[in-house]
Amino acid sequence: MLFLTPEQHDIHQRIKALVREKIAPLARHIEATPEFSQEAYEALAGEKLFCLSMPKEYGGMEGDATSLALMVETIATASPSAALMVFVTNAVVRTIAITGTREQKKRLFGELKTGDQPMGFCLTEPDYGSDAAGLQTKAEPTEGGYLLSGSKVYITIGPHGRYYLVFARTGPGPKAAGISAFLLDRHAEGVVFTPPEKKMGLHGSITSQMFLDNAFVPENMRLWPEGEGWRVLADVSNPMRVWGAASLALGTAQGVLNDCLEHATKHRLFSEQAVAFVLADMEMNIEACRSLNYRVCRLVEDHRSSARQVESMVSMAKCYAADTAMKVADLASNVLGNEMARADNASAQLFRVAKGIQIFDGSNQIQRLIVARNLAAKGRELV
Amino acid sequence: MLFLTPEQHDIHQRIKALVREKIAPLARHIEATPEFSQEAYEALAGEKLFCLSMPKEYGGMEGDATSLALMVETIATASPSAALMVFVTNAVVRTIAITGTREQKKRLFGELKTGDQPMGFCLTEPDYGSDAAGLQTKAEPTEGGYLLSGSKVYITIGPHGRYYLVFARTGPGPKAAGISAFLLDRHAEGVVFTPPEKKMGLHGSITSQMFLDNAFVPENMRLWPEGEGWRVLADVSNPMRVWGAASLALGTAQGVLNDCLEHATKHRLFSEQAVAFVLADMEMNIEACRSLNYRVCRLVEDHRSSARQVESMVSMAKCYAADTAMKVADLASNVLGNEMARADNASAQLFRVAKGIQIFDGSNQIQRLIVARNLAAKGRELV
Amino acid sequence: MLFLTPEQHDIHQRIKALVREKIAPLARHIEATPEFSQEAYEALAGEKLFCLSMPKEYGGMEGDATSLALMVETIATASPSAALMVFVTNAVVRTIAITGTREQKKRLFGELKTGDQPMGFCLTEPDYGSDAAGLQTKAEPTEGGYLLSGSKVYITIGPHGRYYLVFARTGPGPKAAGISAFLLDRHAEGVVFTPPEKKMGLHGSITSQMFLDNAFVPENMRLWPEGEGWRVLADVSNPMRVWGAASLALGTAQGVLNDCLEHATKHRLFSEQAVAFVLADMEMNIEACRSLNYRVCRLVEDHRSSARQVESMVSMAKCYAADTAMKVADLASNVLGNEMARADNASAQLFRVAKGIQIFDGSNQIQRLIVARNLAAKGRELV
Amino acid sequence: MLFLTPEQHDIHQRIKALVREKIAPLARHIEATPEFSQEAYEALAGEKLFCLSMPKEYGGMEGDATSLALMVETIATASPSAALMVFVTNAVVRTIAITGTREQKKRLFGELKTGDQPMGFCLTEPDYGSDAAGLQTKAEPTEGGYLLSGSKVYITIGPHGRYYLVFARTGPGPKAAGISAFLLDRHAEGVVFTPPEKKMGLHGSITSQMFLDNAFVPENMRLWPEGEGWRVLADVSNPMRVWGAASLALGTAQGVLNDCLEHATKHRLFSEQAVAFVLADMEMNIEACRSLNYRVCRLVEDHRSSARQVESMVSMAKCYAADTAMKVADLASNVLGNEMARADNASAQLFRVAKGIQIFDGSNQIQRLIVARNLAAKGRELV
Repeated sequence: MLFLTPEQHDIHQRIKALVREKIAPLARHIEATPEFSQEAYEALAGEKLFCLSMPKEYGGMEGDATSLALMVETIATASPSAALMVFVTNAVVRTIAITGTREQKKRLFGELKTGDQPMGFCLTEPDYGSDAAGLQTKAEPTEGGYLLSGSKVYITIGPHGRYYLVFARTGPGPKAAGISAFLLDRHAEGVVFTPPEKKMGLHGSITSQMFLDNAFVPENMRLWPEGEGWRVLADVSNPMRVWGAASLALGTAQGVLNDCLEHATKHRLFSEQAVAFVLADMEMNIEACRSLNYRVCRLVEDHRSSARQVESMVSMAKCYAADTAMKVADLASNVLGNEMARADNASAQLFRVAKGIQIFDGSNQIQRLIVARNLAAKGRELV
Repeated sequence: MLFLTPEQHDIHQRIKALVREKIAPLARHIEATPEFSQEAYEALAGEKLFCLSMPKEYGGMEGDATSLALMVETIATASPSAALMVFVTNAVVRTIAITGTREQKKRLFGELKTGDQPMGFCLTEPDYGSDAAGLQTKAEPTEGGYLLSGSKVYITIGPHGRYYLVFARTGPGPKAAGISAFLLDRHAEGVVFTPPEKKMGLHGSITSQMFLDNAFVPENMRLWPEGEGWRVLADVSNPMRVWGAASLALGTAQGVLNDCLEHATKHRLFSEQAVAFVLADMEMNIEACRSLNYRVCRLVEDHRSSARQVESMVSMAKCYAADTAMKVADLASNVLGNEMARADNASAQLFRVAKGIQIFDGSNQIQRLIVARNLAAKGRELV
Repeated sequence: MLFLTPEQHDIHQRIKALVREKIAPLARHIEATPEFSQEAYEALAGEKLFCLSMPKEYGGMEGDATSLALMVETIATASPSAALMVFVTNAVVRTIAITGTREQKKRLFGELKTGDQPMGFCLTEPDYGSDAAGLQTKAEPTEGGYLLSGSKVYITIGPHGRYYLVFARTGPGPKAAGISAFLLDRHAEGVVFTPPEKKMGLHGSITSQMFLDNAFVPENMRLWPEGEGWRVLADVSNPMRVWGAASLALGTAQGVLNDCLEHATKHRLFSEQAVAFVLADMEMNIEACRSLNYRVCRLVEDHRSSARQVESMVSMAKCYAADTAMKVADLASNVLGNEMARADNASAQLFRVAKGIQIFDGSNQIQRLIVARNLAAKGRELV
Repeated sequence: MLFLTPEQHDIHQRIKALVREKIAPLARHIEATPEFSQEAYEALAGEKLFCLSMPKEYGGMEGDATSLALMVETIATASPSAALMVFVTNAVVRTIAITGTREQKKRLFGELKTGDQPMGFCLTEPDYGSDAAGLQTKAEPTEGGYLLSGSKVYITIGPHGRYYLVFARTGPGPKAAGISAFLLDRHAEGVVFTPPEKKMGLHGSITSQMFLDNAFVPENMRLWPEGEGWRVLADVSNPMRVWGAASLALGTAQGVLNDCLEHATKHRLFSEQAVAFVLADMEMNIEACRSLNYRVCRLVEDHRSSARQVESMVSMAKCYAADTAMKVADLASNVLGNEMARADNASAQLFRVAKGIQIFDGSNQIQRLIVARNLAAKGRELV
């Protein structure tokens, strides 16, 4: 019901099969265990999903935003932690595809097209959670490149990545103006990760803090010119939220509904109107969310909308999807009853994931600020 | 941001201009006054909006579901009562376009293409509000046609229509099986309307009860064969809910946001975060609703989805849009404060409209029952 | 279930009977008609309810906060407009009882104990809606008293009052410091009222704007010393909100539940779980609201709590009760269906009243600001 | 602000001190660790809180419902798991106090007054979760007593109890009629517990399944006569829900607010209106909940209300408190941001506890059914 192209449809079918056969059987364990799941990683790498967004001319599938969204959503219905691993990697791959020089792409994609290389995204710092423009990590020029020093938090993948997209300061500012974007090699000296953090949910997705102590990045691993890092972030990375956090949340919500539908069918609960109405409300909210997500996927690749519209719509998609996941997961106890009090219940796990998605990748409150700011600008134009 | 065809885009622009210039200035009066607005009627008829859905081969614009939705939504942002008048008429026109014989279409559309003929839709009866299949109005065969007797409620347009699509019983049942669909001429003898009902909102949309006492309908004014009336309803009319009640609700919600945005801009309220967040939430809910509506518009004309999927999605679109309108209108007082306590405040009017849309055209509770029933069927297939 | 004293219980029973016999039969008309209801006025005056709060030593019943709350709530279950008329009058009577000198009380209560004198409360001004301390109405000293000039909005009772409690500026400020409180005679020269405003609901409660053009108030009609007007407002009048707007809202919510319960019983709807659960939620929310209201009634007369606690709890009671009324009235359509779309349906009327109560008497957003400010102060003490 | 007697006030102060000094420092560990906390147990036993409800004539403090509620709520603000342990034990102690013979009380309370004996409550069975009257555990008469066989789930305290209140079938039914209540000695042969279940939250409160294989209970350990077990449950145990699950939930909500208030104060977040309003809403909902809880505490010991009223009000208190805890914990992420994504964050722990309380001890949906059933009965009387 999503009006897919044949190519998008094929990718979707292939991923559905993979999830059913290989991810779903591992999912309850992945979501409960604070470890990198080698088994999930191999299953996903086997289908080359870590580089779904790589351009065809370099040997990739060149999945568009809709395809990426289908992938993240579908994996997340079973295991949001696995979906997050794939999403973050594709976010870096796609950033390279958009901002890299021909030379960079040729070299990097030559290496990455094996499809088994997770990647990390390093923006937030301990003291500047919600104001990324104030970041302090420094990139000092040195011969042939830069020495990076500082610390970054919320590194999905933790130490398991091949390259890390790092935003660091090459100039004094004002704020956003002095930021540049780099691809840091995992094996550079001076790169240290903390052990995985203990989180409320998303246990199978490793989250670490990264410390950089004069870690070397060669000049040809900088994306776009010096001082253009903020533009990489704002124009390229941020819109990915719609097939990232928003799709993760949509899949989480759908995973809860799948679980509840199975339970209600098995225990013949549809005869209880109070249960049946809850299920109807779940589906209704999810379909509204799905409609918004895939509309915004098209929007971020269609170049007729203004930057303000795109920014607002992406923020709405993230915020609305996370809220939908939370609402649906909260309702689940009305269907599942005591089942949901168990630690290994699918919906109980997703309930915690949903709260996490509201919080991370630009909290829902930050997204509301963005939407409000753009609405205020629109208001001023109307007067 | 809706990926319109050039034709849909043109229709939209034309209607936006009409609404801005002719409907908006009348809107507060229309919504407050329990009368048929001759002025609004003429403005809408002047643009031939009453027959937007008429096929091109008969001289119409052949607006598809998306175009009809754009029309209803856009008019509703200013005046839901005016939008309802146009929607109901097009619902009848489109039903003729789909179910009429070539001969019927030639004759009727020849007459209707002047574009100034409102039409009525007559289904619900006093005692069978939520179970349409139990309707009691009789159509007794007589020479050259049928004599209709019974009573119908919630007739939008009241006595101002040219023809009325009437569902009546030609056979004993069981229930739905004996129902047929007729086009009743306003001027037939035995057709009587009550004065307009006093409603909570939507005052400018006349609602009457209709009494039929052996009102004659010639045989060539029956749509589809005898006993196929239920199919006319279920397959043809019901899906129109997505560009009918759902678009009405979406426009209502957007009307409230427009009003609040203007107020907040004028009184510089965006600096109050509690106000700004409310506006952001309004927009976010409206865009989710809009995304769902237009996706379902495409779906009802795309023939790849199952009947069950279409039925569910249409029910979700109606229910979700009405709930969105109610939620947005409820939030408005946090932006408008005392303004909203005034009878002639736009949002105060729309607040009452929103409650009405949740109730009518298959209440939201009925829609939830439909969604739940289809979900239960889906669940049984999964097991 | 409210642990009333015998005296409170008696008052409650007496008012329940009055409402059942005299107010309920008029209620649908009162709530629909923008006029002062002479009949309701006489019924209420006949029971001396306009001076329920008058001290016993002056011939009154000396109803405490709980008794006043019982009165307002009970009348509001049928007719919030009638309840508002009684509430505002008692607010002025009680302010006199607390702040008046012995001489003032003797004189005024001698006149008011006939029990048929409505009173008005005049605080808000056209340009200072939410910041009462910025009021501009002036009280210029003159021989034997003051000349009041300015304008006041939202005067419940309109021109039908005997006296009006008017807050006016006797000194330059800073802000609150220069305000004094006066009792203005209806018959003073220079007092003009606008015709009743057209409101969304509460039609039977007249609301006018008042213009003062050198209206004379004798010195012995000032309450407390010059410059103490703000204290009259903050310490005496504001806490009345709990048996005023909060009780009005509680009664409104209970009126909706009564209506829905009757409808559900008559139409045998309890077998529909979706309806039954809605009714259960209504009752649950109302009982939480009732518990809070009557606890705060005791609190405002018990002198062990800090001023900050009392202020916060009164704000919570008002805000929570208004939100409860709105939520309950919103849910009603799930029980009543089409009945609620009629203009003269009890719940349809109360739905509009509920929105009004959220807005007036310090909007719910203002109450949240007050609660947050006190919570911030508490937080600072904890650190 | 709760109008406590001096005795209630003293108990409250004593428990607040205990929680602050001994429970709070352990709380994060207790809530995260699926073990019986010996340290918490000793702290609580040291204050004789396990027998707070024991009558004075047997050496206890004879805490009434309000005192028990204050205890459970206060402990729960820090550690709901610890509170649950104390609550369940007092539920059994109080059941003995009400239903025991003089001889039983003398003997049992003589033993229990050391204050260090937790107790268990054994009602639910694997296959009869929501219909307790259908329980299957058998009590076969044997010489000098009964042999109990069957299985029970959700045994708080697990194997750590001294006695267990077990409901078992002594007669064939119909249903409730054949049930009797027994006090089972932990050390009886044939009593086996499973290891603690893995739950979503409340980790420090051990929950096990119990298997009974001809476990002997002497006749003098039966409460009330044979076949009166259902009455023990309905009249004595069920109303304890108000100072049990409802107080647990209220304390959980307050614990979240305490955590958020501290965070907001420390990080100076009150200047963000979006945060300040969330905190205000938390407090408002909690105070409404508190008001309902303590009103119902009085109600269950005041004998003027009908059984139906008491049953309804207790159900509302449980359901409303659990919903309040869930709502408040859900809101917390708007204040805490990333802090709440950590596994050991207080609010993150309480977020999972809140979901659990909605589910257990008669799920909120069951409570709504009870409220609706009583409301339907009230409706029928009105007609």
